[in-house]
Amino acid sequence: MAILLKSGRVITADSDSICDILVQDEAIAAIGRNLPMPENVQVIDCAGKLIVPGGIDPHVHLSMPFMGTFSSDTYETGTRAALHGGTTTVIDFILQKQGNSLRAAFEEWSGRASGTAVGDYSFHMAVTDFNPNTQLEIEDMVNEGITSFKTFMAYKGALMIDDAQMVGLMQEVKKHGGLVTAHATNGDMIDTLIAQHRAQGKLSPLYHYLSQPEVTEAEASGRFADIANYTGVNAYIVHLTCQGALNQVRRATERNQRVLVETCIQYLVLDASLYENEAEGAKWVMSPPLREKKDQATLWAGINQGLVNVVGTDHCPFMWEQKLLGKDDFSKIPNGHPAVEHRMELLFSEGVSKGRITPQKFVEVTSTNAGKIFGLFPRKGTISIGADADLVVIDPEKQHTISAATHHMNVDYSGYEGWELTGKIETVLLRGQVAIEAGEARVGPGYGQFIKRGKTAF
Amino acid sequence: MAILLKSGRVITADSDSICDILVQDEAIAAIGRNLPMPENVQVIDCAGKLIVPGGIDPHVHLSMPFMGTFSSDTYETGTRAALHGGTTTVIDFILQKQGNSLRAAFEEWSGRASGTAVGDYSFHMAVTDFNPNTQLEIEDMVNEGITSFKTFMAYKGALMIDDAQMVGLMQEVKKHGGLVTAHATNGDMIDTLIAQHRAQGKLSPLYHYLSQPEVTEAEASGRFADIANYTGVNAYIVHLTCQGALNQVRRATERNQRVLVETCIQYLVLDASLYENEAEGAKWVMSPPLREKKDQATLWAGINQGLVNVVGTDHCPFMWEQKLLGKDDFSKIPNGHPAVEHRMELLFSEGVSKGRITPQKFVEVTSTNAGKIFGLFPRKGTISIGADADLVVIDPEKQHTISAATHHMNVDYSGYEGWELTGKIETVLLRGQVAIEAGEARVGPGYGQFIKRGKTAF
Amino acid sequence: MAILLKSGRVITADSDSICDILVQDEAIAAIGRNLPMPENVQVIDCAGKLIVPGGIDPHVHLSMPFMGTFSSDTYETGTRAALHGGTTTVIDFILQKQGNSLRAAFEEWSGRASGTAVGDYSFHMAVTDFNPNTQLEIEDMVNEGITSFKTFMAYKGALMIDDAQMVGLMQEVKKHGGLVTAHATNGDMIDTLIAQHRAQGKLSPLYHYLSQPEVTEAEASGRFADIANYTGVNAYIVHLTCQGALNQVRRATERNQRVLVETCIQYLVLDASLYENEAEGAKWVMSPPLREKKDQATLWAGINQGLVNVVGTDHCPFMWEQKLLGKDDFSKIPNGHPAVEHRMELLFSEGVSKGRITPQKFVEVTSTNAGKIFGLFPRKGTISIGADADLVVIDPEKQHTISAATHHMNVDYSGYEGWELTGKIETVLLRGQVAIEAGEARVGPGYGQFIKRGKTAF
Amino acid sequence: MAILLKSGRVITADSDSICDILVQDEAIAAIGRNLPMPENVQVIDCAGKLIVPGGIDPHVHLSMPFMGTFSSDTYETGTRAALHGGTTTVIDFILQKQGNSLRAAFEEWSGRASGTAVGDYSFHMAVTDFNPNTQLEIEDMVNEGITSFKTFMAYKGALMIDDAQMVGLMQEVKKHGGLVTAHATNGDMIDTLIAQHRAQGKLSPLYHYLSQPEVTEAEASGRFADIANYTGVNAYIVHLTCQGALNQVRRATERNQRVLVETCIQYLVLDASLYENEAEGAKWVMSPPLREKKDQATLWAGINQGLVNVVGTDHCPFMWEQKLLGKDDFSKIPNGHPAVEHRMELLFSEGVSKGRITPQKFVEVTSTNAGKIFGLFPRKGTISIGADADLVVIDPEKQHTISAATHHMNVDYSGYEGWELTGKIETVLLRGQVAIEAGEARVGPGYGQFIKRGKTAF
Repeated sequence: MAILLKSGRVITADSDSICDILVQDEAIAAIGRNLPMPENVQVIDCAGKLIVPGGIDPHVHLSMPFMGTFSSDTYETGTRAALHGGTTTVIDFILQKQGNSLRAAFEEWSGRASGTAVGDYSFHMAVTDFNPNTQLEIEDMVNEGITSFKTFMAYKGALMIDDAQMVGLMQEVKKHGGLVTAHATNGDMIDTLIAQHRAQGKLSPLYHYLSQPEVTEAEASGRFADIANYTGVNAYIVHLTCQGALNQVRRATERNQRVLVETCIQYLVLDASLYENEAEGAKWVMSPPLREKKDQATLWAGINQGLVNVVGTDHCPFMWEQKLLGKDDFSKIPNGHPAVEHRMELLFSEGVSKGRITPQKFVEVTSTNAGKIFGLFPRKGTISIGADADLVVIDPEKQHTISAATHHMNVDYSGYEGWELTGKIETVLLRGQVAIEAGEARVGPGYGQFIKRGKTAF
Repeated sequence: MAILLKSGRVITADSDSICDILVQDEAIAAIGRNLPMPENVQVIDCAGKLIVPGGIDPHVHLSMPFMGTFSSDTYETGTRAALHGGTTTVIDFILQKQGNSLRAAFEEWSGRASGTAVGDYSFHMAVTDFNPNTQLEIEDMVNEGITSFKTFMAYKGALMIDDAQMVGLMQEVKKHGGLVTAHATNGDMIDTLIAQHRAQGKLSPLYHYLSQPEVTEAEASGRFADIANYTGVNAYIVHLTCQGALNQVRRATERNQRVLVETCIQYLVLDASLYENEAEGAKWVMSPPLREKKDQATLWAGINQGLVNVVGTDHCPFMWEQKLLGKDDFSKIPNGHPAVEHRMELLFSEGVSKGRITPQKFVEVTSTNAGKIFGLFPRKGTISIGADADLVVIDPEKQHTISAATHHMNVDYSGYEGWELTGKIETVLLRGQVAIEAGEARVGPGYGQFIKRGKTAF
Repeated sequence: MAILLKSGRVITADSDSICDILVQDEAIAAIGRNLPMPENVQVIDCAGKLIVPGGIDPHVHLSMPFMGTFSSDTYETGTRAALHGGTTTVIDFILQKQGNSLRAAFEEWSGRASGTAVGDYSFHMAVTDFNPNTQLEIEDMVNEGITSFKTFMAYKGALMIDDAQMVGLMQEVKKHGGLVTAHATNGDMIDTLIAQHRAQGKLSPLYHYLSQPEVTEAEASGRFADIANYTGVNAYIVHLTCQGALNQVRRATERNQRVLVETCIQYLVLDASLYENEAEGAKWVMSPPLREKKDQATLWAGINQGLVNVVGTDHCPFMWEQKLLGKDDFSKIPNGHPAVEHRMELLFSEGVSKGRITPQKFVEVTSTNAGKIFGLFPRKGTISIGADADLVVIDPEKQHTISAATHHMNVDYSGYEGWELTGKIETVLLRGQVAIEAGEARVGPGYGQFIKRGKTAF
Repeated sequence: MAILLKSGRVITADSDSICDILVQDEAIAAIGRNLPMPENVQVIDCAGKLIVPGGIDPHVHLSMPFMGTFSSDTYETGTRAALHGGTTTVIDFILQKQGNSLRAAFEEWSGRASGTAVGDYSFHMAVTDFNPNTQLEIEDMVNEGITSFKTFMAYKGALMIDDAQMVGLMQEVKKHGGLVTAHATNGDMIDTLIAQHRAQGKLSPLYHYLSQPEVTEAEASGRFADIANYTGVNAYIVHLTCQGALNQVRRATERNQRVLVETCIQYLVLDASLYENEAEGAKWVMSPPLREKKDQATLWAGINQGLVNVVGTDHCPFMWEQKLLGKDDFSKIPNGHPAVEHRMELLFSEGVSKGRITPQKFVEVTSTNAGKIFGLFPRKGTISIGADADLVVIDPEKQHTISAATHHMNVDYSGYEGWELTGKIETVLLRGQVAIEAGEARVGPGYGQFIKRGKTAF
């Protein structure tokens, strides 16, 4: 069957034109004006609407094992909510269990995702235990289409690798043309500050924030860049939040290094003053924490400077009941923020509608750059012939309000309750199927596919 | 009439797909696979070929008045040569005469270009005398579609404005949403060094190079960025050549400023060792001069870091006879380098074929970014529906050799004589017409149009 | 005759000991405990007091020609006030008149100072017109003991030299082992902002401040350092006030350059909020203007980092009546601030008493470093055998209050009226004579000598 | 008894005068010209000689436990050799044994030094296991006069603490006004590179060098500065060797931080080309290793910029037989370089005689700054009344040659064999006693005292 998106204003990272898009089967078949209509074509009138490439959120945690339970969005609920928000592909994190193989983790994660995801997905492999056995598995994972390897410089004893492992991992990944990414915060410093705050009875959410000061991120970002530069590997910092960290990336450019940078939507639009709300502060307990106004400014600037390449979410929702595990101790609040559904509308409203970024830049940082960096391009990340017909129709003027009462993520609060946005996603296609229409999902569990990824071409 | 480019690999800044492009009249009408053919369509078989957007060279000097004569390429010969090299649009510099109006210069330049240009063109306005009268003309020029204003920080007494004028110009241009560009070298320092070398009898081309050391460019680049940051204007440095200057741009990012950067093809591929050739060194006498290997490295890195946005040419050819005016004194050699015809093939060969940049990045820096920065986008700078059908067909594997004997620029030597390149431009369309085919121009003087430009959207 | 300072706590840049100092004739003859007393010795009991080297203020403007009159302190009143404040040597600025010789200016200035100065003095030569004739005089001036050459990067048409002259001057001064100093602000930018403010009717003292934003100083400081680095000359920035400028100096260290830095006492202890006082703001109209709290912080840090080497005053007093010339137009307020008398007590109170700097650092920045940098050392700038007996006895605990009613400078207001200080200068010796005692001067006009200076040894 | 040093040229950090110094008992009693002579005074004729303060080497390892034996200089041989080289006080490192108390280590080290040292000594405490028990001991150590706490960021499992311990230690030391110093290299990275080189059979001394590339030191220096800045503690980097590391210190100044820096004499005068000598390379196996010419340049510049404060040695000698433990495997070569005897003569010859630094700067970096930083001043580090009579008489013109055959360190090779120096130390006084005279030691084991230290006053 075919679908014709009629007369939309098609925006990609490098185009802006009013035309039709013809979708056949899973892919984009033609783009033009007054395209001849095949028989049996479904026509979607897009006049007055924008059409952008399906979003790619390269940073989500679905069904993530946690304290005997899981983050509250499954592959089903999470990818469905993502689709509602225009994100057609997510990249989730497999977490190697220390002492176990990458393969075992891959199979465990695949088992949870396979057959349940509504939207398309891929995986990063978080290497939490780099040793001679792990080393042998890197090439294997690249062959499976998992070409990006996540490291944690925090969470000692659970996820963190030390700099010795970092060197070895980077060398091996470089050999196979992959990418190393990092949660770049100094776990040792943070652990100390958490312990000190707890020992002093400083237990409210504000102390989550104060346990991860800017220096913990700036330091680790610089260290990660340094080691990456030594090994020559392609490097990417996830969820970068602050001026100190971005300045490390800027300085790395002086030695001709390129460090790729992802920030998340919440760091652009929320700030640390929220932690002063003792009752509700847990909603924004995530790592790294929200930062200051100056940091928002540097992140917006970084997008336009070409130095912040991707806006993701680090989507990792927990029910309020789960958050309450830490009501008496911030260190027990499960870290994470639900945002996968709102990323694109928030960035459109705060970025494009308010004139901070061009529509083309919006597409770059929500889709195209992630596509290129993570080896999904040109299949995903753009609107071009033969590419997956992952398409998002936006009414650019439509006002709407965010609320937990209406969102689709499996979480019973919103970090943006009552926010009024300009620009609403109306229709979403995923691989040629109408996935979202009139606020309803039209595809179900199992429609989402695992996407094998290639190498960075950015 | 219609043209169908059949089965090419279409590369834009954000796509890579094998498909057909249907051109009708001046614009791109459809892109797809197995597009239905209109009647009377001319089919160009592009199988095995790349199709990229027509190049935009935002830095050329055609028929530039000089010592009673002119740079050797006219609008006719220059734009024709550009077309041979895949550059379908050039932006030339109008030079205000000190004491005279912008309008007068605009009319003089338009008079020379109009009816003679083979390819499309626009103008920057070089403001060499900013005063209350000039100030009143800025808005006027913006309305004429000249939205970028060039400044010279060198050539005192002829082109240079001082920092007082710079502040005023930037403030006025900002008011009207325009862009200020700079030839950012410290003219006073350079004039002193030239005079010293001459006084010491150091007259060979090498002293052209030694009269413009890196510091002269780094200093002025930093100063230009500083003043731009103070005024808040959009700023762009033309023909940036060296590490010192790019580091100033990098450091400006730390205060959340974005300074746009153009380098030129010669700075990426040639270096200052050429000046040691006393007999032929004049071929490479241009300002700024060629630099060192370290500078080439930082420019290539800058492209991939997203900090070097455009690769232009500063095309300004002079016949060898004209160059010989300075055979006994480097300071009398007319400054300039012929390159408009080779920019895209050189960058393709040295950049894409050698794996330094992706094909998408190639399109960005030869076309799309200039289109966005200089307000030509989305009409030019990309391949999208409704855009001008400015298309370049490249045979990516074809080997060929550069020579003055075969090039089309009106200059009797080549700075790249004997260079062997991989990747040859075969066919070029400009606004829907085959402009270059089988090494021959198919359009003539007057086909090229003046293109009114809008504001930066980058 | 001999003087014995008995049982003081002698503080120099590298000592701290309770002992006696024996002065014979003009010099220090012995330092020790229980030194044997010569006959006819005058004993000054210094128990409980500090003894520090006589201060050197390398930045004063006495009897400076201005609008047909002069700055209000003559060599007599100015050096006498300096002595009251513990400053035994000042370095004044000769201003070459554009078009005239250095020699002529030297003679004019010497004529005013000779026979009238109460305290010792030397001169910097401000080169305001560097040309082939001036070039020939540089060596001559070095031979006269004037080894430091001041440049103005502001005050176009009166004092400013351009970068071409700067290069030439630096090269010539380097040849003769001298030092080039700079008033490093971008005069062109400032002139523009002044003109704009005036055109807009913004005429109050606040607009003096807003006409010289931080960037005007940061930019020029960077440019001065860049050119100095190219020429290899020893470079010194006078009256540096702000973070932006000091960061330029810091960054210059990365290329192995050393740029010497002077700040002035007012920039450490006063800030720009004073300009909001429209009636009295003129008191603080000086160039550069006072800055922000952040700038004070960076200057204090700079002292302890070893990067701010000297604390001077830029003493340039005008009577309130003179200041009122600009009551309706900030640009007509004579620029300058009276501080030569208070420099040491202010720095002692705000620096040493408040624990921001050590007593040794106090001596370094008020005396020793200036002595070494400007070629007065070891004759002046320290307490050692054979050195001039320029000695200052301080009661470190004594509280006192600054007031125009009690100060000795020839100016009828104080920029520090009512300030309460801890630590008072009680007795001052200059070349073995008690110059100040019990608040009275004991030496008169003509006692002060011109001191020929040698080369920088720092 | 009294000693009169007659007619020397006395050089301190802030003086340069020809005079006499009278020593009575242990201290300096008087400085002057033609001082009256007490009875029974011993006169040392210093005409034509320089007299400088006794050197302080704050970085030595004497009788350091190693693989069941000890570094080859005992407190006797090491401090005696130091005296021969003009260094009258050394600061040695106590190494806490992981799992044991600071007190136990203090007693062990004191036991070895007490009664054996010929010259004066103090201790730093190397905290290798910071835990709640250790925390309680910090104040105790400060009270013992051990006010500086060394950390190792390398040698995991033996000496290294992690960043969590670093934060805690810095906070505790700050509370008690102490100083934290660091061996700032990334031990994890180094361990990995060592293991890789060994696995590849790359076993020669060159691989010692290649296992500790510049980045390992630059990274750790930046990290140490970052954490120190967060905690606010006074910080000092030991044996800094390279541009990358010094640039981290320079950048830290931009946030108003001061990081104190020590380099060692070998890094100023030797370079890594020595490692290419496979047979003898072990002589220079130390950590960090020797670096490049560019690093020497930045260290010399750093001294004159005021950013490199101290020149020490990291003296840690091993007999050639001990070095041969690693003849087949660089990782088994005991790390260390014998230099305590040559530091001052090498720096005098290479620095002062060659005009790179002033004589005053020589005193600053060999004695005064260390005295101030480590709380020995004003008792040691200068020549002033009441200070310890630690005095060094130098013949500034005398040529001599370094050789293992003539040196006094207990090691059978020299890293400087055959080096010809200008300037020879002739006589050394320690606390009023002639300690070295005519090449012979005049004081013996037990003469050296433990010196309790106060807090940093710099």
